[in-house]
Amino acid sequence: MPKTTKKTAGAAGAKPSLAALSATEIARRIARSETTAEAVVGACLERIIERDGAVRAWASLDAARVLAEARSSDEAPRGGRGLLHGVPFGVKDIIETIDLPTGYGSPIWTGNRTTIDAPAVALPRAAGAIVLGKTVTSEFASLAPTVTRNPHDLSRIPAPSSAGSAAAVADGQVPIALGTQTGGSILRPASFCGCIGFKPTYATINSAGVKPAIPSIDTIGLLAREIDDCELFMAVLTSQPPRIGETLSGAPRVGICRTHLWDKAEPATKAAIEDTAARLARADARIAEVTLPADFAGLHGARLTLNNVDRALAYSHEWRTARSGISAGMRDVIEAGLRTPRAEYVAALRHLEHCRAQLDTLFDGLDVIVVPCVAGEAIPPTAPIADPGFQELWTMLHTPAISLPTHKGPAGLPVGVQLVAPRWQDEKLLVVSRWVLEKLGPAS
Amino acid sequence: MPKTTKKTAGAAGAKPSLAALSATEIARRIARSETTAEAVVGACLERIIERDGAVRAWASLDAARVLAEARSSDEAPRGGRGLLHGVPFGVKDIIETIDLPTGYGSPIWTGNRTTIDAPAVALPRAAGAIVLGKTVTSEFASLAPTVTRNPHDLSRIPAPSSAGSAAAVADGQVPIALGTQTGGSILRPASFCGCIGFKPTYATINSAGVKPAIPSIDTIGLLAREIDDCELFMAVLTSQPPRIGETLSGAPRVGICRTHLWDKAEPATKAAIEDTAARLARADARIAEVTLPADFAGLHGARLTLNNVDRALAYSHEWRTARSGISAGMRDVIEAGLRTPRAEYVAALRHLEHCRAQLDTLFDGLDVIVVPCVAGEAIPPTAPIADPGFQELWTMLHTPAISLPTHKGPAGLPVGVQLVAPRWQDEKLLVVSRWVLEKLGPAS
Repeated sequence: MPKTTKKTAGAAGAKPSLAALSATEIARRIARSETTAEAVVGACLERIIERDGAVRAWASLDAARVLAEARSSDEAPRGGRGLLHGVPFGVKDIIETIDLPTGYGSPIWTGNRTTIDAPAVALPRAAGAIVLGKTVTSEFASLAPTVTRNPHDLSRIPAPSSAGSAAAVADGQVPIALGTQTGGSILRPASFCGCIGFKPTYATINSAGVKPAIPSIDTIGLLAREIDDCELFMAVLTSQPPRIGETLSGAPRVGICRTHLWDKAEPATKAAIEDTAARLARADARIAEVTLPADFAGLHGARLTLNNVDRALAYSHEWRTARSGISAGMRDVIEAGLRTPRAEYVAALRHLEHCRAQLDTLFDGLDVIVVPCVAGEAIPPTAPIADPGFQELWTMLHTPAISLPTHKGPAGLPVGVQLVAPRWQDEKLLVVSRWVLEKLGPAS
Repeated sequence: MPKTTKKTAGAAGAKPSLAALSATEIARRIARSETTAEAVVGACLERIIERDGAVRAWASLDAARVLAEARSSDEAPRGGRGLLHGVPFGVKDIIETIDLPTGYGSPIWTGNRTTIDAPAVALPRAAGAIVLGKTVTSEFASLAPTVTRNPHDLSRIPAPSSAGSAAAVADGQVPIALGTQTGGSILRPASFCGCIGFKPTYATINSAGVKPAIPSIDTIGLLAREIDDCELFMAVLTSQPPRIGETLSGAPRVGICRTHLWDKAEPATKAAIEDTAARLARADARIAEVTLPADFAGLHGARLTLNNVDRALAYSHEWRTARSGISAGMRDVIEAGLRTPRAEYVAALRHLEHCRAQLDTLFDGLDVIVVPCVAGEAIPPTAPIADPGFQELWTMLHTPAISLPTHKGPAGLPVGVQLVAPRWQDEKLLVVSRWVLEKLGPAS
């Protein structure tokens, strides 16, 4: 969390704001009657009132409604309460909610009311969680700019597209928020904002009610400040018993992979990877140098093809009925997609499959692989946003991936490292991440 | 088309109803000013008025609106008209439409209005097509019963879940309709009703705006009376130039596969497969006997696991807010899904991948494989509906599959054969299907 949080949320030596607690701790305290949902939501709203004029993380939020919901939550009988009773969470505004508008980051959909909660929203609600509000997203979760600013440095961006979720979580406005990733839309904002960004294995969270980009790789995930909270929400989102706070019985087997994109990493990111490798080795991790198969270099081009074609088909309603409301950049994408021969699209899909078939070999004998997450620190809104090269590889390959806020760059801003694991090893990845965070300590 | 069509649509020796024409022919005649969209839509509505009291294929239909849309279509300037200008089509009521309610076959959603057309609807509309109405679906496209009756024998069913689409198309009420398939929801109704049911390669048609069942295998497809119409609509739905009416340069290489489910086929279906093999051999097709890998027998169990878990997650909003509106059968599915350990679900996904990895070998040297489509003829509503064993294999394997109305059973009702092809060989499958239909002639 940025320094400003500590100053304001814990002002004048008072105890830290409830808004600074983890979701897990909030759930625990409410269950023990040590606090109330109303107090927690009130603290989050207080933080938002204080900060939102500068950070602008929220696309829609109804303070009166959410406070009423919190009060109602506090009055609910104790029997039958869910795992997340009274816990507020943020929802990226690409995900449909029945009681708040869903704008998909597009002026076409301002004020849009849907008739259903997406499963990613309904499942936490069923467990007692409270939707604090909708967080700002880029247009259709693309690389388009947003109004949101980086809470660590308001002259910089949180990065698209889960911009509001990352900024709100990092700024102590809400403990956890839903994001989505098709390239690097969870992990890059997490790295830029200094929070955890967790993209589970593809299709782990049901993606109904989420505006699609590339359906074969679009993945719902989490922005959070604690590994525990990722475990807690993932249990709810997959209807599994929670396993929270588990630790490794021994040091993990860790691959270090600089990837073919190493030259695109700035010194801060290169240093973060080298430092991670050195310190984890000192902590007795078995370290192996890993090189990606040469074919993986073709994934970037394949994603561009899929991005053009799939977005062209996905936004056919908007293209037909509201074309002028689509940004110039997205119109170019759609036009390219509408012209793309089917054979080119199928070749891209085949290339992805070909690369995925090499994952077992890549991960052989390893629990996780550490790779660069971002080029470097957060950039100003005027700087061109790079392709999400470091993150998109793993989105396309369907592996779980996480960005951990372990390092800082030359401007004192966060620089994360990315850990990836074999498909469906999501729980293991989170447990290894806890170990890595313990060994690396807070970013310095 | 059932005999009743000929009697009524071409009554008293008059020329056949415009409603009996193919979509391709309708598009051609409108383009040449030989007919109008209004006349075509009027003929479809006439047929529906005559028949819908008995067949009950439509979930919603607004005759005045659709006639007005047809008149407006006829007034549109000729320049810039799309491939489907003035062509009516039906939309399974599991797919969202902006101007008609979308009920998903569930009483929870009666009268539900969505804010967008699904891409599967928007793309044909952008090409000039007219949504004639929404067709009846089972609850959430499951195996639940529907009110729709088989147009060939009103004491029998069209089979779930694309029941209305199959019945309406087979009965000459609309030339083509959208369906969806997670088990056998396109091909079984097509076989029972005696029309073509085409399930493309998984994810060929963008599935946004379609109520999910098992997202990793749910597939949108077509119910039609002509191969040409499948080609025309698939071109529009994938934004590709149309290639309609192509023929093979030589006889195809055809595998004949009785599958491990052969004992579940009734004599009519066994006879259809044997007859197809014999007659295609006489037509110089190179015939090979094909046996499925033993692992494929495990696909059925895997689908049950996925069906439980994925539906439990997908309908979490309904489960939370409107549980009493969910049928008892679906509640059982959801409860089973909510209890299923994640490891069991992942094992099912892995099994599917393991089977898909064997497809290249299975299809080696073959253009298509002919397999049983259904157990036999259409059944009465009181008979238990069997698992969609013959169709679900190929839905799970992501291959394109088509049901062709080639044979009849002991009651004189349709019995289709199923052709499957390697993934992404959809165009080839349609061209081979045209060849097969030519060689086998009309069902007798």
